Amino acid sequence: MTQSSPGGATPGTPRTPRGMPDGEPGVPGMRVVAFGGGHGLAASLSALRRVTDDVTAIVTVADDGGSSGRLRQEFGVLPPGDLRMALAALCGDDDWGTTWARVVQHRFCGGGDLAGHSLGNLLIAGLWDLLGDPVAGLDWVGRLLRVTGRVLPMAAVPLDIVARVEGVDPAAPAVISTVRGQAAVAVTPGRVRSISLVPADPPAVPEAVAAVREADWVVFGPGSWFTSVLPHLLVPSLLSALTATPARKLVALNLVPQPGETEGFSPHRHLEVLADHAPSLSFDVVLADVAAVAGAQEDLRKAAKLLHASLTLADVAGADGTRHDPVRLAAAYRRVFTAG
Amino acid sequence: MTQSSPGGATPGTPRTPRGMPDGEPGVPGMRVVAFGGGHGLAASLSALRRVTDDVTAIVTVADDGGSSGRLRQEFGVLPPGDLRMALAALCGDDDWGTTWARVVQHRFCGGGDLAGHSLGNLLIAGLWDLLGDPVAGLDWVGRLLRVTGRVLPMAAVPLDIVARVEGVDPAAPAVISTVRGQAAVAVTPGRVRSISLVPADPPAVPEAVAAVREADWVVFGPGSWFTSVLPHLLVPSLLSALTATPARKLVALNLVPQPGETEGFSPHRHLEVLADHAPSLSFDVVLADVAAVAGAQEDLRKAAKLLHASLTLADVAGADGTRHDPVRLAAAYRRVFTAG
Repeated sequence: MTQSSPGGATPGTPRTPRGMPDGEPGVPGMRVVAFGGGHGLAASLSALRRVTDDVTAIVTVADDGGSSGRLRQEFGVLPPGDLRMALAALCGDDDWGTTWARVVQHRFCGGGDLAGHSLGNLLIAGLWDLLGDPVAGLDWVGRLLRVTGRVLPMAAVPLDIVARVEGVDPAAPAVISTVRGQAAVAVTPGRVRSISLVPADPPAVPEAVAAVREADWVVFGPGSWFTSVLPHLLVPSLLSALTATPARKLVALNLVPQPGETEGFSPHRHLEVLADHAPSLSFDVVLADVAAVAGAQEDLRKAAKLLHASLTLADVAGADGTRHDPVRLAAAYRRVFTAG
Repeated sequence: MTQSSPGGATPGTPRTPRGMPDGEPGVPGMRVVAFGGGHGLAASLSALRRVTDDVTAIVTVADDGGSSGRLRQEFGVLPPGDLRMALAALCGDDDWGTTWARVVQHRFCGGGDLAGHSLGNLLIAGLWDLLGDPVAGLDWVGRLLRVTGRVLPMAAVPLDIVARVEGVDPAAPAVISTVRGQAAVAVTPGRVRSISLVPADPPAVPEAVAAVREADWVVFGPGSWFTSVLPHLLVPSLLSALTATPARKLVALNLVPQPGETEGFSPHRHLEVLADHAPSLSFDVVLADVAAVAGAQEDLRKAAKLLHASLTLADVAGADGTRHDPVRLAAAYRRVFTAG
C-alpha cells in the first residue's frame, strides 16, 4: 500500500481553477491555508471550499475531552475530532459529500462501549492504527470523502494546552492560576491571559510547514481563540514558516465572545491577545462582521494596526448572528483575496 | 439523503460485461447469488467477482460472538461481521480496493473499549444507526469500497442458531442436546445433527428474495456447513424463492471437515445434511476439489444424486489444501456456468 498523499495538494503543482459550488468563479491558483479547530474552522473551510480548490486546513491536536480524549487515551494517537470536523466541512454539496459528511459526524448513542464516539473519529483512528502515519491516514479519509483540499494536524504529537487564568476563584480575582487541558480551558471561569503548549516545542508535520511556505493566503480564525486559533503560533516550525512565507495573512474575528475562554472580550482584545502570542508576526487583513463590531470600529482599527493589518468589514453572519454564513463568508474571502 | 440502493444491482437492468480482473473474460449477463458467511463465502466471492460483475452475496446474520456479538448486544443491530467480510472480498485488486479492504478488516488492539472491534463493523453499524436501513447502509459501504456486486443480509432481523447435537458429553454419546448461538455451535463437541433458527420465521429483505428470483446461478458454500451454509434454507421466503427461481444451483463443498461442527463429516455426509434441511429443493451441480474427495467419489456421486445434481471435480484448492484458491475456484465456476 502506498503511504503517499493520495488526496493532498502537491506543492509546486499549479491547480486548474474550477467553478465553485455556489456558482461564483474560483480564484485561479489561489492557495489558502486555514488555521484553527472545531466549529470556527469548519465555518471557515465551508466558505473557503467555495473560493478555491486548493485549501489546506491545519488543525489543533490538543483536544482531551469526549470521543477524541478517549481515543487519545486508549491509543496514544492525535485527538481526531477537530480533524474530522475539518474533513466534513470540506465535503461537497452533492449526495456523496453530504452523506459521508453526515456519516463521519455521526455519534453513537446509548450507554455502551461506543456511546459518544463519533464514527469519523473511529475511522481516522483506525486508519492511523493501520497505516502508522497521521498524514497518510487523513489523506485516505479525504479521498473517501472526496474533499476539496487537504486536512493536516498542527503537530505530529498530541498536545496539551496550559492556560494562565486570572480570577478562577471569584473571591480572589487578581490571582493567576494554571489550567491544563483544552476541555478545562474552554470552560474555565475567570479570564484567560495566555496559553502555552506541552510539549513546548512540538514537531510540526512537514506537509503543514510546506503548505504555509507555499500559500498565497493564510487565514486565522474564526474559532475558540485560546484553544483553536492561538495554539498554532506556539509551534516553533509553524511560526517560522509563517514568518518566512510570502503569503498574506488574514484574521477572521468571531461574531460573539465565547463563554469561558473569551467571556467579556472585546473584538479589540482578541487582536491584542493574538499580538501577545506572536509579537514578531504581522498580518494584512482583519475581517470582522459589520454588525458584530458596530460601535467598536475605531478601537478595532487601532488594534488591527498592532498587527500591521487593515480592517475589512463585511456582512458574514448567519441569520442568528452567532455563526458565520458560509456563502457570505466565502464572498468576503473572495473580495479580500482578489483586492490586493 | 436518498435511502435508495446506490451500489446495488438493479433487477431487470442488463449489465455490461467487463473484462475480469485476472484477464479472463467475464460471463456476459450472468447473475450469480452466493449464499454463505465467514471465510467460506469470502473465498467464493473472491472467485465470483472474477467471473461476473453481477454477484449478490446473501449473508448469515446469526453471529453472536466477538465484535459482531458486542455490536448486536449494544445496539440491537444485525451482526455486521460476515457482511463486512463479504464486502471486503468483493473489493477490487487496485490500490483503492486493497486499501479499503484492509481498512474495513482492521481490528483495534489493546485492552480498551474498542479493543477487538473491527473497523468495518463499526462503519456498518454507524451507517445503520444513521440511516435506519440495513440494505441502504450496506449499499453505501459498497459504494465506498467500490465493490463488484452487492452484499445483503440473509434476514432483516438478528438470528440465533440452535443446534441439536449428539454426544456433547463424550460419556453419553447417544444423548441429543440443544446448543444455542452460532459461536457455541461452531465449536461444540459432539456431532451436530440439525439446526433451526430463532425466530423460526424471520423476514428476508426483499432485495435478497428478488436477487434469488432473478438469478442465473445460485451458489451454496463453501463454508461452515451448519452455521453459514444451511441457515439460509430455513428462512421461509428465501426457500420459496429458491424453489421458484429458474436459476441453476451449485453446491461448493469444503476442502476439509471443520473441527467442531463438522468434525469427521465425509463430503457425502455434507450433502445428506443439506438434503435433510431442504428436502424439497433440487440442485444442479456439486463442485468438489479433486484431491479433497479422492477415494470418495462414488459415494459423493450418489449423494449428489440425492440433490438431483451432477458432480463436477476441479482443482480449486490453494497451496496448503485447506483454503480455496480464488483464481482456481473462479476458473471452475466459469467452466460450470458456461457448460450448460
